[in-house]
Amino acid sequence: MKCAIISVGTELLMGQVTDTDAVYLSSELRSLGIDVNYRYTVGDNDSRLREIIDLALRDCDMIITVGGLGPTEDDMTKETVCSVFGENLVLDKKVKTDLIRHATKYSYEITDNVFKQAMVPEHGEIFYNGTGMAPGIAVSKNGKTAICMPGPPREMKAMFEGGVRDYLKKFTDGCIFYKVIRLFGRGESSIETDILDLIDDQTDPTIATYAKEGECTIRVASKRATEDEARDAVMAVVDEIVRREKDYVYSIDDEDLVDVVGKKLEDGRISISCCESCTGGMFAEYLTTVPGISDVFERGIVTYTYRAKEEELGVDHDTLQICTAVSEEVAQQMAEGLYKKTGSDICISVTGIAGPSGGMPGKPVGLAYIGCVYKGETAVVKVLARNLSRQWNRRFFTLTMFDIINRRLDGRPVPESY
Amino acid sequence: MKCAIISVGTELLMGQVTDTDAVYLSSELRSLGIDVNYRYTVGDNDSRLREIIDLALRDCDMIITVGGLGPTEDDMTKETVCSVFGENLVLDKKVKTDLIRHATKYSYEITDNVFKQAMVPEHGEIFYNGTGMAPGIAVSKNGKTAICMPGPPREMKAMFEGGVRDYLKKFTDGCIFYKVIRLFGRGESSIETDILDLIDDQTDPTIATYAKEGECTIRVASKRATEDEARDAVMAVVDEIVRREKDYVYSIDDEDLVDVVGKKLEDGRISISCCESCTGGMFAEYLTTVPGISDVFERGIVTYTYRAKEEELGVDHDTLQICTAVSEEVAQQMAEGLYKKTGSDICISVTGIAGPSGGMPGKPVGLAYIGCVYKGETAVVKVLARNLSRQWNRRFFTLTMFDIINRRLDGRPVPESY
Repeated sequence: MKCAIISVGTELLMGQVTDTDAVYLSSELRSLGIDVNYRYTVGDNDSRLREIIDLALRDCDMIITVGGLGPTEDDMTKETVCSVFGENLVLDKKVKTDLIRHATKYSYEITDNVFKQAMVPEHGEIFYNGTGMAPGIAVSKNGKTAICMPGPPREMKAMFEGGVRDYLKKFTDGCIFYKVIRLFGRGESSIETDILDLIDDQTDPTIATYAKEGECTIRVASKRATEDEARDAVMAVVDEIVRREKDYVYSIDDEDLVDVVGKKLEDGRISISCCESCTGGMFAEYLTTVPGISDVFERGIVTYTYRAKEEELGVDHDTLQICTAVSEEVAQQMAEGLYKKTGSDICISVTGIAGPSGGMPGKPVGLAYIGCVYKGETAVVKVLARNLSRQWNRRFFTLTMFDIINRRLDGRPVPESY
Repeated sequence: MKCAIISVGTELLMGQVTDTDAVYLSSELRSLGIDVNYRYTVGDNDSRLREIIDLALRDCDMIITVGGLGPTEDDMTKETVCSVFGENLVLDKKVKTDLIRHATKYSYEITDNVFKQAMVPEHGEIFYNGTGMAPGIAVSKNGKTAICMPGPPREMKAMFEGGVRDYLKKFTDGCIFYKVIRLFGRGESSIETDILDLIDDQTDPTIATYAKEGECTIRVASKRATEDEARDAVMAVVDEIVRREKDYVYSIDDEDLVDVVGKKLEDGRISISCCESCTGGMFAEYLTTVPGISDVFERGIVTYTYRAKEEELGVDHDTLQICTAVSEEVAQQMAEGLYKKTGSDICISVTGIAGPSGGMPGKPVGLAYIGCVYKGETAVVKVLARNLSRQWNRRFFTLTMFDIINRRLDGRPVPESY
């Protein structure tokens, strides 16, 4: 099953919005075993859209359009697709009723063009829109299929999950199973070298590595006759990769490091506090993205000045003067001062130079020290980020803090430096 | 000048990476007055790429490819484009020397395929890569032009800014000028209603509105014979929009609210501290994205528990028990306690319910109170976010904090509620 995704909208061609729909769909279709061979982006223009549809249908069995289902004159995806597939549009009473109900609830006047959204193909599938107005549709002709979905990402995603995914299952020939391994602390090229023999051998399962801001991801996927077969094939490779990279793997289920750590803290009822300098609250912000973390997160302190470090954490004035704020000594005193103040099970600190300026001889931009008190022991770790940007450095420092906590919670050794 | 962007890479079709290159290029080309009529995404496959290039060149004067310039066998964009344009590839000595220098510096062995990157078209433009290895190229034939750029966003952007933009200027017929107005605190549909007469009238300048997480953006663009004419036309519309929406506009130069506020604080040497509950450090994190903010940012405190609010900010125990943490009273005591502790010129607090759970009768998820001490006066504001998600709520609370500070710094009134 070969498929093309067609994103419709002049705003996409103008670079005003990023096409996250196409990314989401590409990934979901792949996991269903449907190959996306092309993606096209076209403006709100009937003749260009028609040309792209014709082209896509030459090579592909299916097209999925996203966008252009709304009430305005610009929105003509459904009309164009149905015209290509020889389908008449007829009024859907349920959609019409919903549109009237919506207008009544939010007290606006219904203009005629609103009901354009209630027109659906005479023969085809309707996907009602639980989070917006315009329904999605599917039509078929001569073994080719077109699916049209609305553009707003929330609506598209809800419609895909609520109906389109099941609809698509009948088109897939085989079962896909995949796992996504997440690693921190080892570069993509080193990992590739470690598992080169597995990568070179691959036909099925396939192995693909990606790097992203200090993290690395390995996706292992298989397509077999049954899900069990696919799972067995994938898990054999996953087990081998984990065996080789066990010191760096934090998830084989595509979880974010912060969620892995958050869950361990919540499950173990392990309280945590943090104090941050260069990351400016990013650690606390990441940690508090985890729902329910309030049960264990006691407090966070952002000490951007010497005065704040002294007053809030009891860092020694002379140490700051002699060692400067970005030093092993200060990182240690920050974490230990925080522990003294809060008594939280884990107290973590960070002090560093995020840049773009602020580097000193021997202390370059990208340098940070992290202190971590846990079970009566303070680990102090030196971090040297690649200094690709201020935000990159801050993010790398923050993820390293989570990695250190994860290792300490597991009882695994913490590297002296990152 | 009509143009198509062709993104090359199987990883794009698999949904593993988001195509930010195409968004960046679309926006930049538009501001140069080059119309992007289509975008195509194709895998690392010579015949499919060739087909897409042929198709694009039928309608467009120019194609810009992104990706597929690397050393591996998969990378064949340059070879395919040059074959279509009838260009031989020859060795570029400068690139070869750079590749050898790079390998020596990072001590790896050069395999033959590395030098593939040093092959360039015999007749054409070379864009050397200041941030990576593979150079970009431009070739022309029969009035059609192709430009090939590398895929990594940092490399592509640096190459565009460092050479491709200037190269493109000779193709533009007219001058584009545009302004991007940024607003906070008023919905997109209300703004559209306010300026409907301007939107309905538009031919040039064009007016387009977009909404994004509680913020709204209006882009006003004009294409005229000279830049002065385009600027005058745009500024007349911008002035009228600002006149109508002056209470909500925080930038007419597409600046982020946090940068607008950060600059005012830095320029005025106005010190600031913050204390956060539901946003969990997001305000401090946003504020510290501004380089140089360390001159004025004194400290941030994330008080996630009652105990932390009492110990750190001196919030009254009984008030917490009677009013609960999410109340006007606690927001006020937090901000005033922070002021007592730090003496910072601005002390801002937030306490609320980010969700997904934690709502109470009369205190729904999405509710927050913000306190702001400035010049001896505390403003307390009620915020009700649309509760689209935990992170959406947190972001809306945080932006509202910046909006309140921005208004207070300007001496503009602060709304009682958002």
